[in-house]
Amino acid sequence: VKHNLPPLHYHDYLKLDAILNSQKTRSKEIGHEAHDETLFIIIHQVYELWFKQLLHELSSIHNIFVTNKVAETHMGLIVARLERMGEIFKLLIDQIRVLETMTPLDFLDFRDFLFPASGFQSFQFRRLEVLLGLKSKQRLPFSSQPYTAALRSDQSKELTQLEEGPSLFDAVEDWLERTPFLNLADFDFWNLYRTAVSNMLRTDQQTVTSYKELGPEEQARNIKIIHEAEQMFKALFDEQEFEKSRLNGTWRLSMKALHAALFIQVYRDQPVLQQPFRLLMALINLDELFTNWRYRHAVMAKRMLGTKIGTGGSSGSDYLTASADQHRIFQDFNRLTTFFIPRSQLPVLPSTIERELGFYYSAK
Amino acid sequence: VKHNLPPLHYHDYLKLDAILNSQKTRSKEIGHEAHDETLFIIIHQVYELWFKQLLHELSSIHNIFVTNKVAETHMGLIVARLERMGEIFKLLIDQIRVLETMTPLDFLDFRDFLFPASGFQSFQFRRLEVLLGLKSKQRLPFSSQPYTAALRSDQSKELTQLEEGPSLFDAVEDWLERTPFLNLADFDFWNLYRTAVSNMLRTDQQTVTSYKELGPEEQARNIKIIHEAEQMFKALFDEQEFEKSRLNGTWRLSMKALHAALFIQVYRDQPVLQQPFRLLMALINLDELFTNWRYRHAVMAKRMLGTKIGTGGSSGSDYLTASADQHRIFQDFNRLTTFFIPRSQLPVLPSTIERELGFYYSAK
Amino acid sequence: VKHNLPPLHYHDYLKLDAILNSQKTRSKEIGHEAHDETLFIIIHQVYELWFKQLLHELSSIHNIFVTNKVAETHMGLIVARLERMGEIFKLLIDQIRVLETMTPLDFLDFRDFLFPASGFQSFQFRRLEVLLGLKSKQRLPFSSQPYTAALRSDQSKELTQLEEGPSLFDAVEDWLERTPFLNLADFDFWNLYRTAVSNMLRTDQQTVTSYKELGPEEQARNIKIIHEAEQMFKALFDEQEFEKSRLNGTWRLSMKALHAALFIQVYRDQPVLQQPFRLLMALINLDELFTNWRYRHAVMAKRMLGTKIGTGGSSGSDYLTASADQHRIFQDFNRLTTFFIPRSQLPVLPSTIERELGFYYSAK
Amino acid sequence: VKHNLPPLHYHDYLKLDAILNSQKTRSKEIGHEAHDETLFIIIHQVYELWFKQLLHELSSIHNIFVTNKVAETHMGLIVARLERMGEIFKLLIDQIRVLETMTPLDFLDFRDFLFPASGFQSFQFRRLEVLLGLKSKQRLPFSSQPYTAALRSDQSKELTQLEEGPSLFDAVEDWLERTPFLNLADFDFWNLYRTAVSNMLRTDQQTVTSYKELGPEEQARNIKIIHEAEQMFKALFDEQEFEKSRLNGTWRLSMKALHAALFIQVYRDQPVLQQPFRLLMALINLDELFTNWRYRHAVMAKRMLGTKIGTGGSSGSDYLTASADQHRIFQDFNRLTTFFIPRSQLPVLPSTIERELGFYYSAK
Repeated sequence: VKHNLPPLHYHDYLKLDAILNSQKTRSKEIGHEAHDETLFIIIHQVYELWFKQLLHELSSIHNIFVTNKVAETHMGLIVARLERMGEIFKLLIDQIRVLETMTPLDFLDFRDFLFPASGFQSFQFRRLEVLLGLKSKQRLPFSSQPYTAALRSDQSKELTQLEEGPSLFDAVEDWLERTPFLNLADFDFWNLYRTAVSNMLRTDQQTVTSYKELGPEEQARNIKIIHEAEQMFKALFDEQEFEKSRLNGTWRLSMKALHAALFIQVYRDQPVLQQPFRLLMALINLDELFTNWRYRHAVMAKRMLGTKIGTGGSSGSDYLTASADQHRIFQDFNRLTTFFIPRSQLPVLPSTIERELGFYYSAK
Repeated sequence: VKHNLPPLHYHDYLKLDAILNSQKTRSKEIGHEAHDETLFIIIHQVYELWFKQLLHELSSIHNIFVTNKVAETHMGLIVARLERMGEIFKLLIDQIRVLETMTPLDFLDFRDFLFPASGFQSFQFRRLEVLLGLKSKQRLPFSSQPYTAALRSDQSKELTQLEEGPSLFDAVEDWLERTPFLNLADFDFWNLYRTAVSNMLRTDQQTVTSYKELGPEEQARNIKIIHEAEQMFKALFDEQEFEKSRLNGTWRLSMKALHAALFIQVYRDQPVLQQPFRLLMALINLDELFTNWRYRHAVMAKRMLGTKIGTGGSSGSDYLTASADQHRIFQDFNRLTTFFIPRSQLPVLPSTIERELGFYYSAK
Repeated sequence: VKHNLPPLHYHDYLKLDAILNSQKTRSKEIGHEAHDETLFIIIHQVYELWFKQLLHELSSIHNIFVTNKVAETHMGLIVARLERMGEIFKLLIDQIRVLETMTPLDFLDFRDFLFPASGFQSFQFRRLEVLLGLKSKQRLPFSSQPYTAALRSDQSKELTQLEEGPSLFDAVEDWLERTPFLNLADFDFWNLYRTAVSNMLRTDQQTVTSYKELGPEEQARNIKIIHEAEQMFKALFDEQEFEKSRLNGTWRLSMKALHAALFIQVYRDQPVLQQPFRLLMALINLDELFTNWRYRHAVMAKRMLGTKIGTGGSSGSDYLTASADQHRIFQDFNRLTTFFIPRSQLPVLPSTIERELGFYYSAK
Repeated sequence: VKHNLPPLHYHDYLKLDAILNSQKTRSKEIGHEAHDETLFIIIHQVYELWFKQLLHELSSIHNIFVTNKVAETHMGLIVARLERMGEIFKLLIDQIRVLETMTPLDFLDFRDFLFPASGFQSFQFRRLEVLLGLKSKQRLPFSSQPYTAALRSDQSKELTQLEEGPSLFDAVEDWLERTPFLNLADFDFWNLYRTAVSNMLRTDQQTVTSYKELGPEEQARNIKIIHEAEQMFKALFDEQEFEKSRLNGTWRLSMKALHAALFIQVYRDQPVLQQPFRLLMALINLDELFTNWRYRHAVMAKRMLGTKIGTGGSSGSDYLTASADQHRIFQDFNRLTTFFIPRSQLPVLPSTIERELGFYYSAK
């Protein structure tokens, strides 16, 4: 590739004039310069730069899912980009340690000047949540206003529109539903699997019953959990039951998508399923890292603010703590593990099917 | 130091025969060897080794507090050991990533063989909790039995005894109560401080009231939080009120200890307070790291087990999640930050007092 | 799976009596107990436990390579285990921070008692190096004796034998040589590729020549580097030239293996190459993590010992620094990147070949 | 503090318009958009933001040293800021993992468009080095031109000027020289210390001589190291000898500063020395983290570029590897540990001196 662009200087390429002149401390403006406000600004700018990068990766992945319907040649790329997002999330978590070198007393030197600015006003963060698949109705209510109230009106509109289109969650669900091999001709896989799960749950129940040390109360509680699992599992194969369990919030994915996710995970060693398995793992990792970040952030807020309200007028830390779990996107994959059975008890795939799951060149 | 011991070999010094021959997988014994059981054993052994190290440090710190009453020449040492404990906790958290390379399906290969063994049976972990200051009555109830029921009876007894003696929490409280300089002769520090806090809370209230965008509901909620803070603060100076707030769980430390912790933090730059300040920071860090570890552990359990019961017959992950907050020891230090005031509004210490807070050689 | 084993207790399962009673400090035995010796022992025991885990994973991978010749159903498993090894190496690196909380003065309290024990006597570490593929002749010479002199004679013998068999390096080389698709019928891939690389190197040379700011000396140096790269690349396609470059240490892998590694990387998106690509990446990561660990370890030793000799009579830190680079196993993969060409210039694979590289079910 | 500034919005406060619109990829401009160029830009912008923060902290510390001559009330603050710099350096190291998710092939998609931009052109990084104390003459030569040649002329001038003023190294040296208590009236500390070190080195020599397993060659080498240490130590107390050893590069700090650094470390538990000790530890940590970052960066460059020249026309990775050690600033503190003696052999301070090293209030 030839080009006629002038030679490049590092300083101009990175637009360092703009980047490095964007730290105007409010405290200095007011005439009481606080040393640590620079850290406060820079760390948030770094967060926003990483959010931009996360959105760049997420959009590209979303696009491959929605537009290209995930050709097999794209699988490695999608997984690599999800894993990159994971590495960025680890940084976001570790970064909190740097912020915590600012003590609450240091923060007080400029905290009041910032009112009512708040992390709740980060548009990119909200975009990230919405694009991943967080729905307004799933959000933990905070004050009587919608979560978009803190944002500029153009940003608020953009989010509302974004929420109407397919999220990554929707795209993944759609992709799972298109998984081939869920109908395995005359090999009655799902019936065999259901029997194996029933056996497993029955064994669990026997274990609990025979373990006297648990005490009657605890035994009863455990048996209840097992029965619920049994019901959850049954509902996975009955369309009407399933819709009920979806309405009450047990599941978010469709029945077909859940079947596919189960199949991919238990037969993950089959060549054609190896990358789909990694993709699911990468999603689970990402969801977990996001959750860990939310909680870590909440703990930091508690330390920094005590029981005081945040800079944006919120008693943020309790809200943040509760949202860590509530705002997870891919919880279904965690719940699904309840129904995994040991590999030794998995139905053996007929060789005709195994062939289908392999590479062309080895099957010739 | 001369000695007559024979020359040492690395292998013998570290007792590697014992250490490296202690990984007998249950799955192999049963005849269905599961590759990942070795990881499961080794990672838990590593946890226990680190718990031993944490107990070694904690006991030595505890001992300096209880026996030596913390001479000033010990401050640096205590802080260094608390910080070492913090570094170890970071490893304990990061280590979970290694365990998560084992998928739920891999775990199923040997999970049933382990019943009813469980992390709930870790004696060293319980010792650590008790020695730090976790009391039985503070523990989130789990089943109808005491938390010691999972342990061997000798271990259970030892813990009960340990809980009767002074914990690190008690020793820190005692040390704080002995802080000199809380009575500053005719300098009426606490009255000045109380006025400053009242002013600060009043300003907070004005800010909230004037910020119309919050909406009436949210304003009311925030004003309630401010009023509660006001009451909490008043109770800090009235012995009867304080005892009430201590009974209802707002505070755990004594009034005198809280005053000292406040004084140390807001005047942390005075030479004699610099190391006590670091000590408080190290405790806050440790408490936070422990909390983060508990939550991280809970998230991992959720991923590994789904909604199933744990190897010890527990639906562990929900319990673990809730305990992260409930089992904190030094929460008071977080709550106390609510009453910090900006440095610019701190009462200025008279020079006679400043001299007292300095070094001998510079005051001569 | 049914079994008749008695119920399991955490304490017994993990053999905690053996594990937790294996910390006998030499300093206490001598009568001058040093607090930090416990940390020194425990951290090294943790290292050895992780080394055992690394060997467990490495042996299983090695076995799949050597015995099973890596069936396609094994690819995901191998990659996952290599990645697990990588996660463990990250811990090994981070762990050094904990050791560094022990100051040199603390170390002096017991350092002399340990003579001549030394990390050079870690059998498991040597096993790991040899099994990965480090050869005696590649080792940086240290004193006039073989590296095995520090070990017990039975351990020394075992290592000598191990070095005679195939290492992971050898097994990977063998696997690469068996890569199909290197001969692509009448599609003259390698000729096209060689032309593209020559063009690229020529462009590099023009860039350097036209960039006056470099100065004549620097230009000459850069042009020399480019010419060397050209020679290296030519040698990749001429058996006699290649053998020469292998003898002088430029390459360690065979010509055929290098071709395969190149092909896999530039066409990594083809379904059948996606997992082999990840495998190469996992090896590169591991090699890099090992290198980083060695260097990090050397820096720590320098801090702890100054210019003094180590506990084992070695002036260890300089040796350790130099070995970080010298003892790398998979350097060839780094050197190979010199000959990657931009994707836009890659020869386009004919559709008949692309079909071969895909899955059976999509080609039907 | 009252102010009349308008209410603040997060977006404006952080100048997100400037920050988030500063990622113009060269590849898109040229018409061949490369997905990963955005990561490349953003990660470098994040580096520059952190460099700005590091400079903010370093300048403030430098200022306290140079202007205020480090009042005792500043010690805690200096240590806290140095430790914050350490936390930021850990992020800079971890961040490399994110960059490494970009493969060499991905980099090739836009690498040629960047010529001759290079990290060698980072002005802030050079400022950091110079302000810490890296001198032009200490720099590993790279090409025939000064290191400032890559920079804009105004930046180059600024660095030259900066190098003429006192660096942090100079300021620390100056502060160490002002340490009181180096002359301890009629207590002949240094003579006692010198005898103790001589005894220690003699014992080391006996140990080596009696350890036959080392072999004669290795024994001779070790004895040479001990003799060199002996000479180094003697030179620490003879002004003429010391100047020689300083000229040949053994030491960089002045004799007086080295004495102070030794005194502070071995008597670190004395109250007045506790914070100076932490300060030295923080400097040692920072120097080590910088070194680790340099090496880690070099390893990454090797992986990304192979033996090719960097974007700035440099065969960077070898240079970077060598500079990791060569560009250390506070090596002297590492070398000094050679002369620590076990605490049990330290001269006991007379109680009159101990009193001087304590707090005013406890001495009254």
